[in-house]
Amino acid sequence: MSLLTVGSVAFDAIETPFGKTDKIIGGAGTYIALAASFYNKDQKIVAVVGDDFPQEMIDQLSSRGVDTEGLQIKEGEKSFFWSGKYHNDMNSRDTLVTELNVLETFDPVIPESYQGVDYLMLGNLTPQVQKTVIERLTERPKLIAMDTMNFWMDIAMDDLKETIAMVDILIINDEEARQLSNEYSLVKASKVIRAMGPKYLIIKKGEHGALLFHGDKVFFSPALPLEEVFDPTGAGDTFAGGFMGYVSSTDDHSFENMKRAMIHGSALASFCVEKFGTQKLEEITQADLDARIEEFVSLANFEITQVIS
Amino acid sequence: MSLLTVGSVAFDAIETPFGKTDKIIGGAGTYIALAASFYNKDQKIVAVVGDDFPQEMIDQLSSRGVDTEGLQIKEGEKSFFWSGKYHNDMNSRDTLVTELNVLETFDPVIPESYQGVDYLMLGNLTPQVQKTVIERLTERPKLIAMDTMNFWMDIAMDDLKETIAMVDILIINDEEARQLSNEYSLVKASKVIRAMGPKYLIIKKGEHGALLFHGDKVFFSPALPLEEVFDPTGAGDTFAGGFMGYVSSTDDHSFENMKRAMIHGSALASFCVEKFGTQKLEEITQADLDARIEEFVSLANFEITQVIS
Repeated sequence: MSLLTVGSVAFDAIETPFGKTDKIIGGAGTYIALAASFYNKDQKIVAVVGDDFPQEMIDQLSSRGVDTEGLQIKEGEKSFFWSGKYHNDMNSRDTLVTELNVLETFDPVIPESYQGVDYLMLGNLTPQVQKTVIERLTERPKLIAMDTMNFWMDIAMDDLKETIAMVDILIINDEEARQLSNEYSLVKASKVIRAMGPKYLIIKKGEHGALLFHGDKVFFSPALPLEEVFDPTGAGDTFAGGFMGYVSSTDDHSFENMKRAMIHGSALASFCVEKFGTQKLEEITQADLDARIEEFVSLANFEITQVIS
Repeated sequence: MSLLTVGSVAFDAIETPFGKTDKIIGGAGTYIALAASFYNKDQKIVAVVGDDFPQEMIDQLSSRGVDTEGLQIKEGEKSFFWSGKYHNDMNSRDTLVTELNVLETFDPVIPESYQGVDYLMLGNLTPQVQKTVIERLTERPKLIAMDTMNFWMDIAMDDLKETIAMVDILIINDEEARQLSNEYSLVKASKVIRAMGPKYLIIKKGEHGALLFHGDKVFFSPALPLEEVFDPTGAGDTFAGGFMGYVSSTDDHSFENMKRAMIHGSALASFCVEKFGTQKLEEITQADLDARIEEFVSLANFEITQVIS
């Protein structure tokens, strides 16, 4: 089943305790589409870049099954650029530079050929742009997932809540869930947030894994304990891309299947953090991914038997 | 198989954002023995209390299958007392009072009837006392587990390392693992610490679950997401007690069985935090525990199937 991703395709410059990069390719849309491509070969993307964006990455997305007709290239303009520096614990970071560039006036045009798309993943963007995309689709996708961030809670909460009310799955981190719900307990937060509209809520906890809430069910997907987290940039987007890539390719919305999707997303995210930017995602093979999934099975699964006492 | 626990049996006074208690019963030894009693009816305890300690709790331990011959009662002396106040996030706390009392001169006498015990759980005490217990057992137990804390790393690191080298399983939290190993990554820390002696290392991460390392295997046991954490006191000891209670009662040291033990320990810990002190552990029935274990199965287990794409 087809999957449309809307999200930034951009440049990042990253500094971690392990080193720093020049401008490298980043953006939520890029990570989501790359991650989803391990499961879904019928993808589409709506995004905007300047004429500084390398054709090689666009070609790579195409070769991975991503239809790039909806990727607008603005002549004479520059791509979105973000630069950040991670602290020693890798859990917090400072933004050094944010240049919106082409994103400032981004109008998410949906190509006619994209109409009727089955699944929609809205990467982190202004809630207004996310909402516009939903409104411009003549047929509602089977399932709409969205990411967002605390920044929009600070400056555009009303818009954000309107958009959240239109989606099926909200994917945010623990800090954002607490801010959005005004509840510290994630169980309480999940109830408040799901009362806003989404039937499913995924709360990402970084190195502490991720939770999926639906009805009275909850599933926990662990993060793989790693020797080294080299660069956390894009891990959340990679998780979301793996999750939606898996759900859309299996076209199965059962809770059991969403559990699997959580594990596939977590496995891809565990690769993402091992090198700077998208590098590791571009390198790994299906065999690497399969082996990593097996690591998650042995990490998390157990069999309860009768106690002998 | 019999299980000997050595640990404090004491009084606590606890303040959390939800309320405060007067002196209530606490102590690592108490929590461990109570938790283990859900699995093992052949327990022994070595500990010391003053004559202020209520006979009712000693009777309760007896009725739960704990032989209390090794519980010394010091006439005219007072039991160990700790008082603490938790911060709003429930993850950090300030110690308000520590009165060592009978613990100051604690000599862990092993009753003759305890010799030949199969399993040993050393609750957090001075490393010297923990070591003495091992030395006083004429036959080495099949499996020795120990807990400790950062305090001993600060003031008695050499003693601590000597004791750690004598045990099979070390059970500590993430902060302690980092301090003990000088490594931030828990995977790296686990290697450094296991090189000190223990073949098994359990790293507890509080609300973020717990990790079991052995050889090149790792297992992650999640914490149950709760609406409210009322009082975290004793949760780590309860986990350890449930873990060792399960391992000793099944007498099975396979990694698969230790995974189950992690889940049983986590389930008991999830009850422990729901009320002040030992109250919830004293209230729950086997049926409550079985139902909670089922919650862990649905929280953590998944089945990977072939991807259709």
